[in-house]
Amino acid sequence: MDWRGKPVSDGMLSDLSSRVEQLKKKGILPKLAVLRVGERPEDLAYERGIVKRFSAANAKVEVSAFPEDVSQKTLEEAVEAWNARNDVHGILVFRPLPKHLNEEKLFRILSPEKDVDCMTPENALHVYYGDGKGFFPCTPQAVIEMIDAYGYDVCGKNIAVVGRSKVVGKPLAMMLIARHATVTVCHTRTKNLEEICRRADMIVACAGSARMIGPAHVRPETVLIDVGINADGDGICGDADYERISGIVSVITPVPGGVGSVTTSVLLKHVVESAERSAD
Amino acid sequence: MDWRGKPVSDGMLSDLSSRVEQLKKKGILPKLAVLRVGERPEDLAYERGIVKRFSAANAKVEVSAFPEDVSQKTLEEAVEAWNARNDVHGILVFRPLPKHLNEEKLFRILSPEKDVDCMTPENALHVYYGDGKGFFPCTPQAVIEMIDAYGYDVCGKNIAVVGRSKVVGKPLAMMLIARHATVTVCHTRTKNLEEICRRADMIVACAGSARMIGPAHVRPETVLIDVGINADGDGICGDADYERISGIVSVITPVPGGVGSVTTSVLLKHVVESAERSAD
Repeated sequence: MDWRGKPVSDGMLSDLSSRVEQLKKKGILPKLAVLRVGERPEDLAYERGIVKRFSAANAKVEVSAFPEDVSQKTLEEAVEAWNARNDVHGILVFRPLPKHLNEEKLFRILSPEKDVDCMTPENALHVYYGDGKGFFPCTPQAVIEMIDAYGYDVCGKNIAVVGRSKVVGKPLAMMLIARHATVTVCHTRTKNLEEICRRADMIVACAGSARMIGPAHVRPETVLIDVGINADGDGICGDADYERISGIVSVITPVPGGVGSVTTSVLLKHVVESAERSAD
Repeated sequence: MDWRGKPVSDGMLSDLSSRVEQLKKKGILPKLAVLRVGERPEDLAYERGIVKRFSAANAKVEVSAFPEDVSQKTLEEAVEAWNARNDVHGILVFRPLPKHLNEEKLFRILSPEKDVDCMTPENALHVYYGDGKGFFPCTPQAVIEMIDAYGYDVCGKNIAVVGRSKVVGKPLAMMLIARHATVTVCHTRTKNLEEICRRADMIVACAGSARMIGPAHVRPETVLIDVGINADGDGICGDADYERISGIVSVITPVPGGVGSVTTSVLLKHVVESAERSAD
């Protein structure tokens, strides 16, 4: 069966809309500040998705767009201004930044309380240590929301995480370990990937390589979570070969329409949580 | 065969002694500052081991011992004083600290440049991201020194890390992933531990559970790295059942006499490296 993202996202939106209403009664309007450099099509698409999702819940988005050649100092001043503003509850910086900018240095000044996508070292460490504090990164958290919404318990399950990136593979591995899954981190140097994947109860594909997970990687019991978003002609496709696999496996998340459609709802959830904490 | 720690440690000591000589010519004497609270027997034993190893290389150790009921403020002042002193190149705090003290808060003020056992958030993040910067924690690094000294290449190997602690299991998993091993992190909730271990090329036992790895976990090709140090009557034993396994596996590290005997040499190496950087 397909685990689709829309019902998960809709369920979250319904809950979050009522929490936004509660906050409004206290005079608080949850607001996300977005920092964009340049006009990359994927950033613009993500931005539209965010604006749409936040509007649906009556939450606010403020976008600051800077030219490609913006200075580090200008960005740091923007982040510091947002850190200081009480009406801004979350800050999101579109990544990667152009190469002349120092992303790490920028994230070090970002307030961890407003770091709704785990860009700061403080929140990255919470993920690594699995101490349950701070905000998780949105995409890995979207995987967790899917798993929870469809009632799958990862405790004691063997999970192959295919990919070891800073933004998805590594944090997701740590988040699944914290939930007591037995996690195998696979990557380009993994020798027997098909065998490891076939043995796993769940595969999380987050390598960023179009259709790399095929029929040889799965069995009828496989739960396949596809986090890949790869360009495919005019559209996008996942890291799994959906056409050839969907008839074999127990569960698959389609691309588009799977994990990716939950990410903006996770972002909204984090901003609402941050606003709720500021109200306490 | 047994991979013993002594030849590895001796080899390191020989190299480090000559580096200490070079530093002395520049007027620099590598020095480690040790902070101990109370008189726990294992801390005292570790302290003696450190003093002995450092003396052998003509490097210095300065121990500050505090009573069990020492205040957080006193410890923070001690760390800050060491941070500021040019003649101190490394700082080591014996862990765990008594419960009334805030370890995390203490480590946040420790200078990352002098953090020779990866206690600071900065160095923990370097391990998590695998960016090769900072100092690795000494015990996991001792495993890496053993592997390197015996010429074992982990790239592409399937490694079961049994244990997910902050001080050994997690950092070691990240360090092995950075060296392109395919790592499975196992723990108390892992359901088919025997099977996972049997399939692995290498098992790293770091669960802190006496003799939990037995004949059913291994095969003739297994390389078994035992990081466990458990009380056993008057002596210590590892996480592996050495008596029953050593005749079966390809490689095993004994306890005592294995990984544990390399740890103080790693500590010395980090202090020498820190002193070398200060000389540049």
